[in-house]
Amino acid sequence: MTQSEKHERMANAIRFLSMDAVEQANSGHPGLPMGAADIATVLFSRFLKHDPKNPDWPDRDRFVLSAGHGSMLLYSLLYLTGYEDITLEEIKNFRQFGSKTAGHPEYGHAAGIETTTGPLGQGITNAVGMALAERLLNARYGDALVDHYTYTIAGDGCLMEGISQEAIALAGHLRLNKLIVFWDNNGITIDGSVDLSDSTDQRARFEASGWATLDVDGHDAEAIAEAIEKARESDKPTMIACKTEIGRGAPTKVGTNKVHGSPLGADEITATRKSLDWAHESFDIPSEILDDWRLAGLRSTKARTAWEGRLQDADPEMKGAFERAMRGDLPGALETAIADYKKSLAHDKPKVATRKASEMALEVINGAVPETIGGSADLTGSNNTKTSQTKPVSADDFSGRYIYYGIREHGMAAAMNGIALHGGLIPYGATFLVFTDYCRPAMRLSSLMGLRVIYVMTHDSIGLGEDGPTHQPVEHLAALRAIPNHYIFRPADACETMECWQLALESRKTPSTLALTRQGLATVRHEFEEENMCRYGAYELETASAEPKVTIFATGSEVGLALEARTALEAKGHPTRVVSVPCFELFEQQSEAYKAAIRGDSKVRIGVEAAIRQGWDLFLDRDDPFIGMNSFGASAPADELFRHFGITTEAIVAAAEKRLAALERG
Amino acid sequence: MTQSEKHERMANAIRFLSMDAVEQANSGHPGLPMGAADIATVLFSRFLKHDPKNPDWPDRDRFVLSAGHGSMLLYSLLYLTGYEDITLEEIKNFRQFGSKTAGHPEYGHAAGIETTTGPLGQGITNAVGMALAERLLNARYGDALVDHYTYTIAGDGCLMEGISQEAIALAGHLRLNKLIVFWDNNGITIDGSVDLSDSTDQRARFEASGWATLDVDGHDAEAIAEAIEKARESDKPTMIACKTEIGRGAPTKVGTNKVHGSPLGADEITATRKSLDWAHESFDIPSEILDDWRLAGLRSTKARTAWEGRLQDADPEMKGAFERAMRGDLPGALETAIADYKKSLAHDKPKVATRKASEMALEVINGAVPETIGGSADLTGSNNTKTSQTKPVSADDFSGRYIYYGIREHGMAAAMNGIALHGGLIPYGATFLVFTDYCRPAMRLSSLMGLRVIYVMTHDSIGLGEDGPTHQPVEHLAALRAIPNHYIFRPADACETMECWQLALESRKTPSTLALTRQGLATVRHEFEEENMCRYGAYELETASAEPKVTIFATGSEVGLALEARTALEAKGHPTRVVSVPCFELFEQQSEAYKAAIRGDSKVRIGVEAAIRQGWDLFLDRDDPFIGMNSFGASAPADELFRHFGITTEAIVAAAEKRLAALERG
Repeated sequence: MTQSEKHERMANAIRFLSMDAVEQANSGHPGLPMGAADIATVLFSRFLKHDPKNPDWPDRDRFVLSAGHGSMLLYSLLYLTGYEDITLEEIKNFRQFGSKTAGHPEYGHAAGIETTTGPLGQGITNAVGMALAERLLNARYGDALVDHYTYTIAGDGCLMEGISQEAIALAGHLRLNKLIVFWDNNGITIDGSVDLSDSTDQRARFEASGWATLDVDGHDAEAIAEAIEKARESDKPTMIACKTEIGRGAPTKVGTNKVHGSPLGADEITATRKSLDWAHESFDIPSEILDDWRLAGLRSTKARTAWEGRLQDADPEMKGAFERAMRGDLPGALETAIADYKKSLAHDKPKVATRKASEMALEVINGAVPETIGGSADLTGSNNTKTSQTKPVSADDFSGRYIYYGIREHGMAAAMNGIALHGGLIPYGATFLVFTDYCRPAMRLSSLMGLRVIYVMTHDSIGLGEDGPTHQPVEHLAALRAIPNHYIFRPADACETMECWQLALESRKTPSTLALTRQGLATVRHEFEEENMCRYGAYELETASAEPKVTIFATGSEVGLALEARTALEAKGHPTRVVSVPCFELFEQQSEAYKAAIRGDSKVRIGVEAAIRQGWDLFLDRDDPFIGMNSFGASAPADELFRHFGITTEAIVAAAEKRLAALERG
Repeated sequence: MTQSEKHERMANAIRFLSMDAVEQANSGHPGLPMGAADIATVLFSRFLKHDPKNPDWPDRDRFVLSAGHGSMLLYSLLYLTGYEDITLEEIKNFRQFGSKTAGHPEYGHAAGIETTTGPLGQGITNAVGMALAERLLNARYGDALVDHYTYTIAGDGCLMEGISQEAIALAGHLRLNKLIVFWDNNGITIDGSVDLSDSTDQRARFEASGWATLDVDGHDAEAIAEAIEKARESDKPTMIACKTEIGRGAPTKVGTNKVHGSPLGADEITATRKSLDWAHESFDIPSEILDDWRLAGLRSTKARTAWEGRLQDADPEMKGAFERAMRGDLPGALETAIADYKKSLAHDKPKVATRKASEMALEVINGAVPETIGGSADLTGSNNTKTSQTKPVSADDFSGRYIYYGIREHGMAAAMNGIALHGGLIPYGATFLVFTDYCRPAMRLSSLMGLRVIYVMTHDSIGLGEDGPTHQPVEHLAALRAIPNHYIFRPADACETMECWQLALESRKTPSTLALTRQGLATVRHEFEEENMCRYGAYELETASAEPKVTIFATGSEVGLALEARTALEAKGHPTRVVSVPCFELFEQQSEAYKAAIRGDSKVRIGVEAAIRQGWDLFLDRDDPFIGMNSFGASAPADELFRHFGITTEAIVAAAEKRLAALERG
């Protein structure tokens, strides 16, 4: 049997598993797996460094199926190369409840799924983050421990999405030469021919951003192999344009949008079996073909054991640091450093913006935690994300710890997902809170995958002032709190800011967003407990002088107003307590008893936040007053805006008194 | 005085107005206006077809300052060329509360501000939409009535944002040759040199997408003029790369990020006056310079009167249609067509997915309203947005009514903003509801500007089934309802779908999103009132058989479940009413009496929506049960998912009975 015949039947195994699974599920996308089967076969049988029996091997090559709808391609590869999580049973249960073989690849469902893809353009950007992480770790631990490639298959959908441009430009700028992108150039999108909506010369586009590019017949195994070899030697990231036929092998539907996202149907499947000379039943992969695949899956065993040897031989300190970072454990030094810092805050009681407090916290954190990788989407000075430890990263020097992401919020967020997925590093990145709108698809994926990614979002309300409504978040806290599995922290002062940072760092399976002010805030905490009070999500910051009649719940910059209002109300004879609410989501996780105690039973409850009310029913009843926003903001100095929109101490006092009077009347 | 000297002092008028206004506000961005003053002066004094005294002239050239932070450039130009809205007083009140001269240009604040910019990349994409609208209207009304250019100034920020790639690719594909982009190539971003984060060859990048490009010294007036002339003759859109110095004229800060976003300071301003030989006081534009500018502002008067003559001479039917469309009035035929259609629904009682019902509604609407322009981000067959009337638009034929936007959700949304801003057309565009995350920055601007843009968002819950959590909206209804000034419609059947479409079309100052199902739904309306019941946002769909004990509030696909639950509860002796809630925002606008009546006073209230609870306190108290989602979805057939997540008739009935029992006990 020739190499070529062997390749052909291995690739056909992918094709039939994919079309049969889609047929059985009566749902799914056979076109891409059938079209990209040759690329994937060459990659997985000759190049990819991975060990199906040790899928977490840190120095494995990463493979990202950016065109996630072609999930059966990935599941087929994982089954065929011998990943235990993906059995034939799982393949037969494609897209069924509880299977590991979801409609799109879901990170965490099975080993070998390096990231969740499906929303287009995310995977290629995750891959940029992974390739960046590889270079960063290589600069720290050397070629012996970190030296691998990152491969991704992207379709026209991924390349049309704007985020792909951010990814391409960033990868080209940083010369991530171990990143190799296969463009599944099949000329078809869901609506029909790519010509309907695009005329881009993709090679020229990539080259404009500093990439090497190659053009191959995506069904010619030797040509693909030659291209991969060239790409691996390049000093630039490489895009290999692979001319393919979508649904390759399906006699009547090949090359059309009919094969993109629907089962082929029994007749076409029969015809495909005939045309590809495949005499085997559904889901039946003959042992000689499976053996070829399983052998391919063993290709890197030696490389892995050699790597393990190098790890054992490494300098013990480096080995320890590497293993700790890869496990995701924080260094022990952090807790002490935080405790010391909180003591200094108790002494200094700084009056600073929480974005500045975040910088102060980061100065402590970055000193204790070498694996943090900071960055900003071109707002470094405003986001206060760069500390004394964070030398910039450049194409010539990956030993730094700070990424100038450029004006690429979405790309930054998705690249951070890739960095977190790679492991060994903790990414944080920043822009203005209002621009979480740009990051949102990637932030949702941080949450869905459960990644430790930390979003530093400053200028968190109308308090940003003159830049006006385009730059003033109003609905963003609510919109972010709506995303499952995401902590939205809005600290009130320097102490809470450090506590929120600590919680974000300790949160391994939930991403965090810190919403931070532009404007200066007084210290509101008077007791700097060793305990992290923000851990409870909400806590009583100030008790009432007697049985409380009023409770004021507030977050971030409005906690100071709440304290002033308390003083005024107490002076008027209304005992008032103040609850600081740094994190709704953590509060929701507390016991019912704790929650009831924090809500308390004062007659009057008021919420205060310079944002919309939506979501505040966590604390408030329908008739309880809320001091906040119910429209877009405006362009003016911040103080004037707070007055104009009625977010003032006086407004809180007036609302409390009005409500007290109403309750006493009725 | 030479032409060159004249140019110089006109450009310097922009520079000084800008730096003085920023200084007075002690806030703002002087760098771009000073750097781009020469480009703007050439454009506005020699090319731009506009009439400051008739700023709404439909055939004016459109000018978009995509780099919106340089707003003082635009305000200076509007003041200098004689727009009445922008007085010297307004310029002195730059960035102050209530001024027309907000921190970023705000559409609607003053004539001459064609769009709201500031969030980067939006303006250039609006400009693509405007240029597309121009070609579409040209194909309908001919050169005599519609024949103008669209110009935009974009900075590195705009070009780094991913959305710009979507814009560039779309414009190149459609060969929008009357679109001219000036790239203010000053080599500086907020963080410092562009080299820190980007190495893209922008000309090559644009050329890869079918653009013509030119390179000029952005301070050489004649070179700029020559480039504009060339660009106007091109059969492709043109990008003119203008090498500029940011903060041109400021002796020590020129060419650095120090001049980007901060006042220059008194010393630097004095030095700039000296270096540019400008002897005039702050805000003092000598009359000879102002005269030159005002004369420039009169340049197109003749062109405008000629155009008005052509309009008067036009075929009366075409003239009437043009004027009506430009006013934004809907054709009278629409109401009759809708009434007839609703009668047919009463007869047919179709059981269809609301995405299909939307197609049926659109078939009626597109027949009666010639100015609708449909499209989809490559999900045409799934979004059901193409009707018999909507021939595709292509570079060779703009007479069509359907845009294949490609896999470019964000670009589609921002281009639709541009189409709506241009006037004369009503854009609607589609993707899956979950991908509103990709569109969100542009959707927010639709709301902030108050544009009639209609978002058709299908596959609106776990009801989409097997594609899994990446494709299943859970938090999106809440997140969209959080945006001020945006109607989120979730119709329950074909009748409500048409009513929601009607409301969306009639809503001139508020954009709309229609959330539509993938899965089939029975008709829930039994009376097909001539009145549009969705207008109230919520209405009693089914009364209780006696004094109601239970009220079920539901939206969209869950209204059917609510009706089934009602039947079951009535059978168990619990009189139950059902309120259909197609639009929270319209309900909020009703009278307190109406709202109280709809909430009613039954003991038990239940909300049902296959999404998170956030926002439902519009109807529910804290203790009222809610049947919906509180996590991400999963990949499985839809029916199974509804069962798994407990969104069933049985769950509603059980929750109602539990609550009744609890209330009776306590």
